[in-house]
Parts: sequence; structure tokens; C-alpha cells
Amino acid sequence: MREVKLGIAGLGTVAQGVFALIQRNGALIRQRSGVSLRVVRVASRSAKPEIDLQGATFSTAVSDLLQDPEVDVILELMGGQDTALELIRSALAANKPIVTANKAVLTAHGNELTAGQGAHLLRFEASVAGAIPIIQGIGGGLAANRLNSLAGIINGTCNYIFGEMEANQTPFDEVLAEAQRLGYAEADPSFDIDGIDAAHKLTILLALGFTGQYDLSTVFVEGIRHITVADIQFAKELGYRIKHLGIILNSDAGVEARAHCALVPNDALLAHVNGVLNAVQINSDGAGETLFSGPGAGGEATASAVLSDVIALAQQGSQKNAREAAEAVTTAPTLIPMSQVSSANYLRIPTLDRPGVFAQVTQALSEFAISIDAAIQHEASSSQPVVDIVLLTDSVLEETMNAALQRLQSLDIVAADIVRLRVAPAAL
Amino acid sequence: MREVKLGIAGLGTVAQGVFALIQRNGALIRQRSGVSLRVVRVASRSAKPEIDLQGATFSTAVSDLLQDPEVDVILELMGGQDTALELIRSALAANKPIVTANKAVLTAHGNELTAGQGAHLLRFEASVAGAIPIIQGIGGGLAANRLNSLAGIINGTCNYIFGEMEANQTPFDEVLAEAQRLGYAEADPSFDIDGIDAAHKLTILLALGFTGQYDLSTVFVEGIRHITVADIQFAKELGYRIKHLGIILNSDAGVEARAHCALVPNDALLAHVNGVLNAVQINSDGAGETLFSGPGAGGEATASAVLSDVIALAQQGSQKNAREAAEAVTTAPTLIPMSQVSSANYLRIPTLDRPGVFAQVTQALSEFAISIDAAIQHEASSSQPVVDIVLLTDSVLEETMNAALQRLQSLDIVAADIVRLRVAPAAL
Repeated sequence: MREVKLGIAGLGTVAQGVFALIQRNGALIRQRSGVSLRVVRVASRSAKPEIDLQGATFSTAVSDLLQDPEVDVILELMGGQDTALELIRSALAANKPIVTANKAVLTAHGNELTAGQGAHLLRFEASVAGAIPIIQGIGGGLAANRLNSLAGIINGTCNYIFGEMEANQTPFDEVLAEAQRLGYAEADPSFDIDGIDAAHKLTILLALGFTGQYDLSTVFVEGIRHITVADIQFAKELGYRIKHLGIILNSDAGVEARAHCALVPNDALLAHVNGVLNAVQINSDGAGETLFSGPGAGGEATASAVLSDVIALAQQGSQKNAREAAEAVTTAPTLIPMSQVSSANYLRIPTLDRPGVFAQVTQALSEFAISIDAAIQHEASSSQPVVDIVLLTDSVLEETMNAALQRLQSLDIVAADIVRLRVAPAAL
Repeated sequence: MREVKLGIAGLGTVAQGVFALIQRNGALIRQRSGVSLRVVRVASRSAKPEIDLQGATFSTAVSDLLQDPEVDVILELMGGQDTALELIRSALAANKPIVTANKAVLTAHGNELTAGQGAHLLRFEASVAGAIPIIQGIGGGLAANRLNSLAGIINGTCNYIFGEMEANQTPFDEVLAEAQRLGYAEADPSFDIDGIDAAHKLTILLALGFTGQYDLSTVFVEGIRHITVADIQFAKELGYRIKHLGIILNSDAGVEARAHCALVPNDALLAHVNGVLNAVQINSDGAGETLFSGPGAGGEATASAVLSDVIALAQQGSQKNAREAAEAVTTAPTLIPMSQVSSANYLRIPTLDRPGVFAQVTQALSEFAISIDAAIQHEASSSQPVVDIVLLTDSVLEETMNAALQRLQSLDIVAADIVRLRVAPAAL
């Protein structure tokens, strides 16, 4: 068991997400990874008495985090440029592990911070694509591959706006205003909708997977202000959806990096990444086409990535590895037998083409209190004496459904084996 | 720099994938991760003289891998049960790191192998979902989360069969025969199409993320033999696609695990995972809904996962971490400026509703040798003097397209700003 004491700079949504995850999952993390997490110090410009600091000491001076010998790992979660940069520099100079979610600082100073003293003590999974472990994916899961290309939906605001424009034919300006009301877009939306945020993230992915160099100026950038509902419709007619993509292509000729709107063919998985979700697709020579998707922002989603870095730092140099980590799970949970599982069901019932058949089927189901959400019955043809009745049931207990199926199958009007399929759980 | 000497059991497609990746990417892996990989010994029942063993010693006795003091890490890539189990047991007893892709052994003996001596020396990323780093995802990227649910397309054969049945209305038996011809299904297909393979993988995911216990008997299993083209069509009519899913739900009532066909709603990302691809979607309390997709089988795809484990083992206990690893990339590559990038383009050209307009537009493009792949022009209305001409161009150099756009914009018949969008690269 190893206790890791955290010092947090900032008290915004990500810091609050860290507090929430430690409170809710601290015991689980300890059991899985052998790492016990505790926040011992918080530094932020102004106190927020409404937040439970779980016993941590509060001060307004960020430098207190460095001076406190109790702090094992610093979390830089304040954002902005100068103070954050100084904190990261000082931590690395003092050989203090530090985790940051700050893509702006990395984009501008990544070459310095990832090459100098203590570079191995800096981690920044949360800086790109929020909860998605894409940095671990590139450096870990795909470590044996040459990366051929990357395409990412790495700005949730743009993706949300396109989705709303498509769903309701609402013009760009109206959707943007609504997104601002809902908190999906900033009061000054330029950072997102002019592609700057995506270019920052793409700069980090470019350095990590392709060039080793952080240089925003090598990334071509365009935003989304010029897209109209008409463009989204025309693209659809042509078999595409419009997405704002970060794109890197690595060929014999060299590497190209660009963040702009692109038409994505409907049969590509990326075309179906909707709402505020992010996704990064990587084509590599051994692993082929892999895609990682998830929430690109949000307090707990970002905190999840921050804490994965903390756990990795704590395991560095220890024998606990991630695999072993995930295994030592807690008290054995109750296993639910199949009979007690609930599902909505698809039923295809081959019936004789006679009057009253539909009523007999629904009557049989109602005896088991199973209600019907949707039904299909196509016209019978004279050459075809058997007609399929297709039903979607409400959610029902497996044992009830099985009993009802036996009853249905025994009806005179059922002409062949009934096919039953479960609908995937809505909770997924 | 650390040299890791590998001993490989087996000479099948995965072992050959390992040789291929080391040969092609050895230098890249060294630069990124500080780990130099070399195969020093191979053991397999029969020699395959056609395979270049890159200087490794060959013998037919698997026990030679254990006796050779040169071997740092053993790769168990022979499959099967008894010999593989014995090799893993002996390696762990001797404190020798071992990497396996063997889901059958893990499913049956996971409790013993992951709890006893040397358990931290056993890794098996390749045992579930091939190239997808899902085990690292659960143990690493999502380590701070409680997992609420998991749904996975974890058998590529089933997914391929459904895709073909849907695309061409081909009956199950015919598609299966074709899949066998193409090598996507085994001569005895039962392991895949009766859901056994998926149940094995789900058992491992269940242990890793939810229960800590390997127990195949707790997983409900159904296959895909009963699905007809009619079912796929009816499901489509209802707004769903049929997938064979591994499903785990973790609620206050307990944990349920089941592998069976399920209707997946069309707006879910999982519904669009096609062909032989695998995908695992996880819903967790902090990170929300994340999805990892990629090839679930294949020599190099599986070898990519095997080598990610080797690299992780080599980095265990060293200060090199995955992030630092990915960064120290090689000689600086050529960066291609935007002007030299090639894209197909979508053009929406607002034109005056006059005769000959379409010809003028295409004439202007042909002056730049830009050809047109698709075009849309809807009928004009009398109230609307401006008509959109929408074109999809062939792939064209950015600087050429920009020059052509200037020319088009200057035409008298162009009534407003042209909207130009690039099509996502086909190479992605």
C-alpha cells in the first residue's frame, strides 16, 4: 500500500472532479492499484468555502505547494499560461512529479518541458480529449507501431453545434447562442469555433506520435463559422457528414497536420461520433485502424484522466502494474443469474395468415403483463401462407419472457420457431 | 537503453507478426521507449524454415525457453491448453516475465495465475480484442473509475457475418461458407458462432473490471445461428442493427454478464462498428461513456498488443514512462506545408439562375485540371434568384484548389461567397 499525497493548484471544475472521484472511489482505487490518494494542500487565488476540501490545507499562494514537503504529486489544474508554466518548471526543477491538464502551456512550451530535467515526472493525459486515454494509447498500447495517420474530433463544442444544426435545421448563430446558454460554448467562443483549441490538441498529438516537436505554427487551422445548414444537407445527400477534424498524415513525403472542417463518409465510425463526444482514430502499421472515443471535457471526465496519471506515477518504479491493479477487486459482488436479467425483446413470430392472429399473440403476451412498444406486420402474399409478426416488447424479466415464449410457441397459429433477440440495455 | 531478449513459444501468425514488427519498427521502438527488442530463442513443435528467425535459436522443446538464461521475457503464442498452462505456471514460478495471448487458459485458470507468485509478471493484453488496448484502458486510463457497464463486439467473425447478411441479403449459411473460404471463420466455426469465444473474452473483462474472479460459468452464452436476413431487415425497420454483444451491467443489485445477439439502436456508436472490427464500450462514473475499437484478430494486430505488454514490462521499475517514451521520436520528419496537401473538395457555389452557368463553372475547374466526382443542383424557384451548385472534386493539391477558387469566385455568375470543405483523407 502506498499513500500518495496530492497538492492541487486551482479550485475549478476539474479540481472539484478530483475531490469527487477520490471521495467516491478512493477505496476502489486503493484495492485495485495499491495506491491510496489524499489531497493534503490546495492553492487557489480565492477560497471557495462551499467546497469540501476533505481536510486539505488551503492557501492562496501556489508556491506553497512546492514548499510543502508532504506533497508527493502536484496537480496543475488552474489553467492559464504564466503561473501554470512557472509552477510546472519549478516542480520539475525540484524533481517533484506534476500532472497537468493545460494544453495551452504544453503547446507553447512542450519542447522545453518534455526534454529537460525531470521530464519523466510530467504527465498530461487530460490535456487532449478529456477522459479518453489517448496519450497512454499512443505511448503504451500502440508503442510497437509506426503511426500512419490520425483523425480526431477533438473539439466537443464544434461537434455539438454541427449535430444541432443537422437535427433541427437551426442556423449556426442560433445554435451557438443556445450552446452558450447551455454551457457547451464560452461567452467568447472564438477559441473553440475558430479551431484554436483543436489546433492546440493536435499539436500535442503531433509531437507525441509523429514528430517529437511541439510547434503550433506547423498546424494549419480553420474554424466552422462558414458552415451553413445547406452545407450539412448537401453533404448528407452526397453520403457524408461534416465534422471538424484534427488530421495528421504521415507518408514517405513527410508529415502534414491540419485542423479544419472535413466531409467524413457515412460508413466511417468517426461520422457517428455525436454530441459533445470526442474521438481519435489512429491508423498504424501493426494495429491497423483503432479508435478511442469519450467525453472531451467536464469536471469528472477530466479528473479521471488526471488521476490515471497520478496512479501511473505512483506505480512507476513499483512492481504493481496496471493489469494486476485492475484485478484485486474488492469484496466479491453479487452475480445476477440470467433469469433475473431484464431486457426489451424483439420477437419474430411466424404465424398462419388467418383473422385474429395478431390479437391472439398480444393476448398471450398480456397474460404475462408484457406490453408492446412497436409492431410490424407486412401484407401477406397468396403464395406465402406464413406471415411474420414482429414485436418489440417493453423491458421484461428473462424468466417471464421465457415463460411467455413457451406459451406463444404452443399457439396453434404459430407456424414455426419464434426468433427472440434482446435489445441492448439502455443503461450502456 | 535496455535490451530485452525474447523467447517465443509457437511459430504461428502471431509469432510471425512479432518478428515482422520487430524487424520493421525495432529502431522506432528503441527511440520511443528506450527498449531494444531481440528474439533470441524460439520453441515450436515443428520448424518452419521459410520464416526468418532473425538469428534466434530454434528448438522443439518449450522447456528450453525456461532453461535459457538469456531469455528475459517469454511470449506464449502457441495457443491450446495444457502445454501453454504449464509454460505460464513454470515461468511465474521461476519469476520470469511472460506475455500470453491465450484467452482459453486465462478463462480456465485466471484465478490461479493472477493471484499466485509472480502474478505481476504475467500480462495478456492480446487475449481480448486483439490490437485494442482494452486491458490497459481498464487498468490504466480508467483506473480511477467505478465501471457501471460494458458492451463489446468481441467476435469479429459474428460481426463480419451480420455485415454480409445485411449488405447483400445473403442467408447465414452462405455467408458462413464464404467467411470460411476467406479465412474469417474456422473450418469448425462453432467456437465463434456459438458465442464461446466471446464468452471467454467477456470472462476476462468481467474479472478485470468488475469481479476479480475468472468464472466462465457465470457468463450466459448464446450464438448467432438462429438469425435470418429477415431479422436483420425487421430490426433495421425498427431503427436497430443486430450485433453479437458481450454485456456486463453493474448495478446495486449485482453484476450480470451475458454474451448474445442484441438489437443496438442506430444512433449508438457500437451500431456502426462493421466488418471484422471489435469494439468495447465502457460506461464509468467519472469518464462517462468511452469506446475503444480496432482489429480483434490478425497476426500483426495481435503482435502489437503482445509487444505493448513487453514494453510495459521492460519499463516497469524503470523511470521511462509511456509518455516520455512516445516523445523521443527519431530524426525530425519533413513537415508538409498546407499548400502541398491534397484533398478531394466539396464546393457550394451560389450562382445566378441563368442558362450555361453549370458549364461555366465546370469549364473554370477544367482549366485547373480539376475533375468532378459528383454534382447536385436542385431546381430553382422563382422567388430564389440564387441557385447552389454543389460539387465534389477529385483529389487536388491545396494550392491548385485555392487558385481555382479565386478564379471561380471572380466569375460574374457567382452570386456570393463559395463554401469549400475538404473531404477527410481516404488513407485514414
